[in-house]
Amino acid sequence: MKHYTSINDIDNIHTWIEEAKALKENPLQGIELGKNKTLGLLFFNSSLRTRLSTQKAALNLGMNPIVMNVSGDAWGIEFGDGTVMNGSTAEHIKEAAAVISQYCDIIAVRAFPSLTDRALDESEYVLESFKKFASVPVISMESATGHPLQGLTDAITIAEHAKVSKPKVVLSWAPHVKALPHAVANSFTQAMRKMDVEFVIANPEGYNLNPVITGDTPIYHNQEDAFKDADFVYTKNWSSYEDYGLVDNIDPEWMITKEKIGEAKFMHCLPVRRNLVVEDAVLDSDSSLVIQQANNRTFAAQLVLKKILENL
Amino acid sequence: MKHYTSINDIDNIHTWIEEAKALKENPLQGIELGKNKTLGLLFFNSSLRTRLSTQKAALNLGMNPIVMNVSGDAWGIEFGDGTVMNGSTAEHIKEAAAVISQYCDIIAVRAFPSLTDRALDESEYVLESFKKFASVPVISMESATGHPLQGLTDAITIAEHAKVSKPKVVLSWAPHVKALPHAVANSFTQAMRKMDVEFVIANPEGYNLNPVITGDTPIYHNQEDAFKDADFVYTKNWSSYEDYGLVDNIDPEWMITKEKIGEAKFMHCLPVRRNLVVEDAVLDSDSSLVIQQANNRTFAAQLVLKKILENL
Amino acid sequence: MKHYTSINDIDNIHTWIEEAKALKENPLQGIELGKNKTLGLLFFNSSLRTRLSTQKAALNLGMNPIVMNVSGDAWGIEFGDGTVMNGSTAEHIKEAAAVISQYCDIIAVRAFPSLTDRALDESEYVLESFKKFASVPVISMESATGHPLQGLTDAITIAEHAKVSKPKVVLSWAPHVKALPHAVANSFTQAMRKMDVEFVIANPEGYNLNPVITGDTPIYHNQEDAFKDADFVYTKNWSSYEDYGLVDNIDPEWMITKEKIGEAKFMHCLPVRRNLVVEDAVLDSDSSLVIQQANNRTFAAQLVLKKILENL
Repeated sequence: MKHYTSINDIDNIHTWIEEAKALKENPLQGIELGKNKTLGLLFFNSSLRTRLSTQKAALNLGMNPIVMNVSGDAWGIEFGDGTVMNGSTAEHIKEAAAVISQYCDIIAVRAFPSLTDRALDESEYVLESFKKFASVPVISMESATGHPLQGLTDAITIAEHAKVSKPKVVLSWAPHVKALPHAVANSFTQAMRKMDVEFVIANPEGYNLNPVITGDTPIYHNQEDAFKDADFVYTKNWSSYEDYGLVDNIDPEWMITKEKIGEAKFMHCLPVRRNLVVEDAVLDSDSSLVIQQANNRTFAAQLVLKKILENL
Repeated sequence: MKHYTSINDIDNIHTWIEEAKALKENPLQGIELGKNKTLGLLFFNSSLRTRLSTQKAALNLGMNPIVMNVSGDAWGIEFGDGTVMNGSTAEHIKEAAAVISQYCDIIAVRAFPSLTDRALDESEYVLESFKKFASVPVISMESATGHPLQGLTDAITIAEHAKVSKPKVVLSWAPHVKALPHAVANSFTQAMRKMDVEFVIANPEGYNLNPVITGDTPIYHNQEDAFKDADFVYTKNWSSYEDYGLVDNIDPEWMITKEKIGEAKFMHCLPVRRNLVVEDAVLDSDSSLVIQQANNRTFAAQLVLKKILENL
Repeated sequence: MKHYTSINDIDNIHTWIEEAKALKENPLQGIELGKNKTLGLLFFNSSLRTRLSTQKAALNLGMNPIVMNVSGDAWGIEFGDGTVMNGSTAEHIKEAAAVISQYCDIIAVRAFPSLTDRALDESEYVLESFKKFASVPVISMESATGHPLQGLTDAITIAEHAKVSKPKVVLSWAPHVKALPHAVANSFTQAMRKMDVEFVIANPEGYNLNPVITGDTPIYHNQEDAFKDADFVYTKNWSSYEDYGLVDNIDPEWMITKEKIGEAKFMHCLPVRRNLVVEDAVLDSDSSLVIQQANNRTFAAQLVLKKILENL
């Protein structure tokens, strides 16, 4: 593995989960591995968990993290090929990626989708440009269509908390007031399809995810049916994929409640809007794994960094 | 001591001052204490001294500081209980504080008051929420009603520069064009009431501080009377506490001048507006201790971090 | 050398180049030199290369870099002498510089010119105020009239790539849509005048640089004539110096093309606007040294830091 930009970069999710759990047991075991190595964290968008946990992961490996908010700190970046740059962008990704590669041993990038131009978002032009023009490994800290550090985290968390050999995992859409990306849902779906779980998705009509990603995963438009005998209910809002970026359903009937999930564990990548996506009673109960998930972000990132460092 | 969010968290100010002076003599004596420990610095508001000195203090203890501007870098945080989060806030403090606690061994927070809603500000909902929902120690880097790192700094500075056993210390209001918080004045008052000093306050009518904090401290509405035989004149503007947040007095007669303070030492927490709060002649003279105060910010923060680290 | 704020601070550019090349061979040779020392990086303006490479340089020397975006993170700084500070600035440089000096062993500052008031810009009031009021060494990370870390970088790069003993180096203006500073062009000119090169400048009429800086350097208003037998073509846009800050020429005839430069190596400080300043065919060819230049930013900064640290 050179880059880590998709759940598909995981060769064996079972091995990875075991390795992550071992790191969690002894986070400083590899503190010499990253010594005098620099991780550049480039944010085109807001971040809390990813920002902090990826820095923490780097520090656990002895690396020096350098954080840059691309928009506020540096220059507007141009991604177009052959563009006459007489507009608002001041630096081309060809130079930016090549240059940053000389200061950083690994580059981690966060860049959200437009949610207005599906083809553009699916081209993953930001992430792919970094992969193309950087001379060092690139890690996705959430891109237009995937959030593979989150997906790996979620797989680790489910493995830790599963009480049966093949748990039932439901990915459920829930209401939200803003147009949100598909990245987390996509990576979670990809991760679950690699796991020994019974995986189903619940979402309103018109909100099916990209069929290339969901494949033969059963999709329910009735939440109650989907939740039957669930061991884990992973919740996330996303805007329409079909009518790309549309938000025409904020039906509170889809909010996650204690009653709905019953004995199942509740998961969410955070940040989560309380009493819109999920009621307080769920988050404030032992059913919720959201804090444990967030904790695992450190070890997912640390595992990815470790594998890349070992391969440098 | 678990948290440090108030001058009242200091068990013995005399001992603390001696310990801080010892740290200042040999700042790297505890460089192993914080090794592989992370300090999260969360800023809801601007900062220069606090931002830099607290990082420096952490580095002196071998800690890794991680800085985050909450508003610009991360998500709008909701503090309301039971709120239906369909507005502008994206993440609840319950999750934010619990999550950050997993990446940081100590959390330091700066959050200024609204100066429009006294009850809300006095509830210290930001700081108290962090204390309630974080699982690690919390340090105030200035909250709505207190700035205890500054207050400790000021106590150290007065102890260093006192030439008599019980110096007279005056806290004097001075004019300013904006509505400023009471935090620094409050913490200074609390610190002075723990010290062996003769402490009085001078402010215009209508600008008395919270009587719960000032207690039996003599309050003068005539600056000249208050300054008589002063050894230290600590200056700070604050908006009205009684008519909460009001600024209806920018009387230049209250500006601090060389003539007014005479032989007294001048102190201010900085930033200070020259020739509005205090004239150049004071700041540019040996009467001013403002730079020495700022230097002590490092050692106040380092002492607090050291005490918390020793207690982890 | 106490400060490094101008190419004129280089005592012997030939020795410096050799030292920088030695650092590049073995970047971690001085990793103990900066141990427990702090570099404060203060940005009044955007930065990518300078931000990252200067941090990397500090890390290579074992220093702790602390980054602050002055405008966003801290307080508006006042530089006027005797100002009644009742406006938008909250802190005077006298305090700011003195205070930061207590937290940082070296202060690096970036502050661009106004391009509206030549006398003000040429006074270098930001940088000079830091030098005057800071008690520690000051490094320019680009000021109103110079970018000496870039100039040193460029000298190193030319020395590395020169194939003849006295190469011909052309500094050529190229078109741009915004009013850009003269800093890079000035420092490059100063650096070249210290080198064993044949140095000429090409720019349109009305765009001559400050004659105090260019001295007896031949200035061509015809690019083709200037480029004859060039070994290096260093390109940069700048607004008019004579009609200060004016941009009345975006003549595409001045854009750098493959055909124009022939066998010469192309150099630019970056960021560069493609197909406005220089065509893709140049940047995407082996003629371009821009990535190598950016790499040398680390070693130029590291050399300067090393010299200052050795002198502390």
